[in-house]
Amino acid sequence: MIRGGCRMGKPQFLTSPANPLLKDVRKAVLRGGLTEAGYWVAEGFHLLEEALRSKLDVRAVLAAQSAQTAVGEHMRLFPNSRVVVLQDSVFRSLATTETSQGVIALVKPPAWTLQELFGSQPLITVLDGLQDPGNAGAVVRSAEAFEATGVVFLKGTVSPYNPKTLRASAGSLFRVPFMNNVDARTLCAALERSGLTLFAAVPHAESAFKSIGDLDLTQKCAVVFGSEAHGVGAELRSKADEISIPTAKVESLNAAVAAAIVLYEARRQRCLKG
Amino acid sequence: MIRGGCRMGKPQFLTSPANPLLKDVRKAVLRGGLTEAGYWVAEGFHLLEEALRSKLDVRAVLAAQSAQTAVGEHMRLFPNSRVVVLQDSVFRSLATTETSQGVIALVKPPAWTLQELFGSQPLITVLDGLQDPGNAGAVVRSAEAFEATGVVFLKGTVSPYNPKTLRASAGSLFRVPFMNNVDARTLCAALERSGLTLFAAVPHAESAFKSIGDLDLTQKCAVVFGSEAHGVGAELRSKADEISIPTAKVESLNAAVAAAIVLYEARRQRCLKG
Repeated sequence: MIRGGCRMGKPQFLTSPANPLLKDVRKAVLRGGLTEAGYWVAEGFHLLEEALRSKLDVRAVLAAQSAQTAVGEHMRLFPNSRVVVLQDSVFRSLATTETSQGVIALVKPPAWTLQELFGSQPLITVLDGLQDPGNAGAVVRSAEAFEATGVVFLKGTVSPYNPKTLRASAGSLFRVPFMNNVDARTLCAALERSGLTLFAAVPHAESAFKSIGDLDLTQKCAVVFGSEAHGVGAELRSKADEISIPTAKVESLNAAVAAAIVLYEARRQRCLKG
Repeated sequence: MIRGGCRMGKPQFLTSPANPLLKDVRKAVLRGGLTEAGYWVAEGFHLLEEALRSKLDVRAVLAAQSAQTAVGEHMRLFPNSRVVVLQDSVFRSLATTETSQGVIALVKPPAWTLQELFGSQPLITVLDGLQDPGNAGAVVRSAEAFEATGVVFLKGTVSPYNPKTLRASAGSLFRVPFMNNVDARTLCAALERSGLTLFAAVPHAESAFKSIGDLDLTQKCAVVFGSEAHGVGAELRSKADEISIPTAKVESLNAAVAAAIVLYEARRQRCLKG
């Protein structure tokens, strides 16, 4: 039960910054994760629309007073949703963006099993230690665009539940099957059971590698991308075929860029193969 | 003359946050541009190394007291450089990153003419209204990796002189020819004079487009990428052939990702053609 909200009626005002709901949202933003009650903090109209379009459970919509009319317009087709209106100053204490649109939705993340990430022709993206939520979110967006079947966030990687990761995914996290906090060993066992090839993306300058253009990415596979600081971890790397993106001069690419190019190339090959 | 610095001798301590040099750096960070004296604020050891490696003029190196030894080690081969040591608390008031390494270099940006962006077989990346310095910097990094000949920042785009753009470029801005604050009309005239084809990247869902896979990107060309909010401006779009990256479901990609894929595809074609 969310206090200060109102179902099936006029939205209710909430003026105290100490309200438990607001404290919960603020804490989630600070620690970069879900609220205590297990909801994503989804900021902005685009994410609200994407959540509704993806038919996810929108637990409540927090609206700044100045955005109340616009929020009401968006929620017209969802009369059962709670809308909680906040003074602009109170709202600003929650907002994660500098140019806030005055709306935050609390959205229940879908739950996936590892098996659901495999799809019919597996192309799994694995993130190993990426710290930047903007990069991780962009990877998920590319995963959806290029039909990767799932995204694995290994232990030690930024959380998909971080509001910034969600925002950078532009809503793709609402739809692309993903798992968080996965152990490298668990992943390897699952890949092996399902007969997937494991590739590890390494910088171009390193020795043992195959260029992605010469690689058959139509096969069932998973590709792991490491953090820019540390690359792919030793455990996964020892079990993977190393691949790289051919580049001139620059040793390594932005992690989101590297993942996008590999996924683009995979989809190109898969479309050609029909 | 930079006060509080010391050439050819022991580094000098600087304790007052009100020192003109520090005020100048702080202002540059805040407004996202160069210092009054025309220097980039380049934070972190990686950018310092890249600046030195790129043989740019490093006007001064600001070191937090706790990083003084490490900075000294880096500067051993550059005894003529000024090193200014700051109390850690004073340094932190300058730092643009949350996990600062305690070093900021003031670096003179190279000056380029539009003609220098054309190279021998022009492949120019044009940014039209991108606001996110992380994305703009990543584009420049991809431009270097995939041998684009230059990057144009049109009026209304985030500045290449923003410390965050520089950081996201991972030093590629030290080497890739670029121009800032270019007028769309001036650009079009220059492209026309040199016989370049102008392409505009548009979201996949839109009607008139050619997929980048079916496109000859070995020709002399410039590709313009718009902001995620507004796309490519009307003036350039009216003069360009519209192209898009084939994607499933997702209408548009992260701008840095889109640029990287187009440049990857261009280099792939150019290498095949040999």
